[in-house]
Amino acid sequence: MPLSARNRLAGTVRSVETDGVMAEVEVETDGGQSVTAVITSNSVERLGIEEGSEVNAVVKATEVMVETE
Amino acid sequence: MPLSARNRLAGTVRSVETDGVMAEVEVETDGGQSVTAVITSNSVERLGIEEGSEVNAVVKATEVMVETE
Amino acid sequence: MPLSARNRLAGTVRSVETDGVMAEVEVETDGGQSVTAVITSNSVERLGIEEGSEVNAVVKATEVMVETE
Amino acid sequence: MPLSARNRLAGTVRSVETDGVMAEVEVETDGGQSVTAVITSNSVERLGIEEGSEVNAVVKATEVMVETE
Amino acid sequence: MPLSARNRLAGTVRSVETDGVMAEVEVETDGGQSVTAVITSNSVERLGIEEGSEVNAVVKATEVMVETE
Amino acid sequence: MPLSARNRLAGTVRSVETDGVMAEVEVETDGGQSVTAVITSNSVERLGIEEGSEVNAVVKATEVMVETE
Repeated sequence: MPLSARNRLAGTVRSVETDGVMAEVEVETDGGQSVTAVITSNSVERLGIEEGSEVNAVVKATEVMVETE
Repeated sequence: MPLSARNRLAGTVRSVETDGVMAEVEVETDGGQSVTAVITSNSVERLGIEEGSEVNAVVKATEVMVETE
Repeated sequence: MPLSARNRLAGTVRSVETDGVMAEVEVETDGGQSVTAVITSNSVERLGIEEGSEVNAVVKATEVMVETE
Repeated sequence: MPLSARNRLAGTVRSVETDGVMAEVEVETDGGQSVTAVITSNSVERLGIEEGSEVNAVVKATEVMVETE
Repeated sequence: MPLSARNRLAGTVRSVETDGVMAEVEVETDGGQSVTAVITSNSVERLGIEEGSEVNAVVKATEVMVETE
Repeated sequence: MPLSARNRLAGTVRSVETDGVMAEVEVETDGGQSVTAVITSNSVERLGIEEGSEVNAVVKATEVMVETE
């Protein structure tokens, strides 16, 4: 189902670290950049996210900052 | 100065749309993926963000969701 | 596609106010409670969101606070 | 004290899971929908949140996404 | 009513800029530091926020980043 | 490098609590107010954040709410 969140980066899960309520998921995007997501351990289990899973990293546009050099 | 935010995607600004308090900035990452940021119009002006600017799109890991197929 | 965001409240769009880059969408949930979303005007247009649309209001669990009485 | 956050869903705490710095709180809203909040374990303790507590789930409007079918 | 959000900085509103759906509110904290909030124009009106209002700037702990030098 | 995030409160780290994926960092701002940040334990380690570190607490303006009395 289409979601209003504007940013959706396709990639592959490189690692999942679960310890306590939260889990850290490392995604290597198809563009070769690394994106880290912190989601609940329950979501990791519910969605069956593991090393090698094909996923999208999704971010609402209001959560993105811009840094200049 | 180093920032705790884990995600920093290098890219080039493709468009800036400013209307009212908020502005929408479209960044094409070096990996060829598009990222949209919504920041204040004041920040756009203060940082001199315009089409062609070399920037990083920065996102805190707790703001990233994971979508499976 | 399944998304890690834990909260998904089904409802009906009661109003859409678009002015500038951002839009305000009022959703009446099936439980009879009102939820307001602020998303980009571009997403409103892209998803065809209008009064009467059947939608889900989606929120990442890390964005929810708890208030006691 | 009135807060600018637009969304306030009244409900009852169904479970609290505390493990490490963060805690996961499940709220059943009066409308019969389930909302999960991830807050600090310190806040759970400070506010005395436990199964059966009457609470509001509070969300800033900029954190709400809209999903269409 | 007590809220789980951990950060509450007391201060005085120095300016309110409303243009479109969103408004920008500048708060000078009692500690002499400036904090900018972007909230809906509807909330500004509903809460009667204006120059000189005594307010708290409230932030959930998961939204705070740390920058080292 | 300049960042679009509008809020940057200078201060000193008073405590760091690491347990699992996430860590809680307490900052006393130069204005004498306390700010709590929840960031990943990996960031705490990567940036070498510890009691006594001089840091900035950084917050995007869209994450700040306003509370009136």
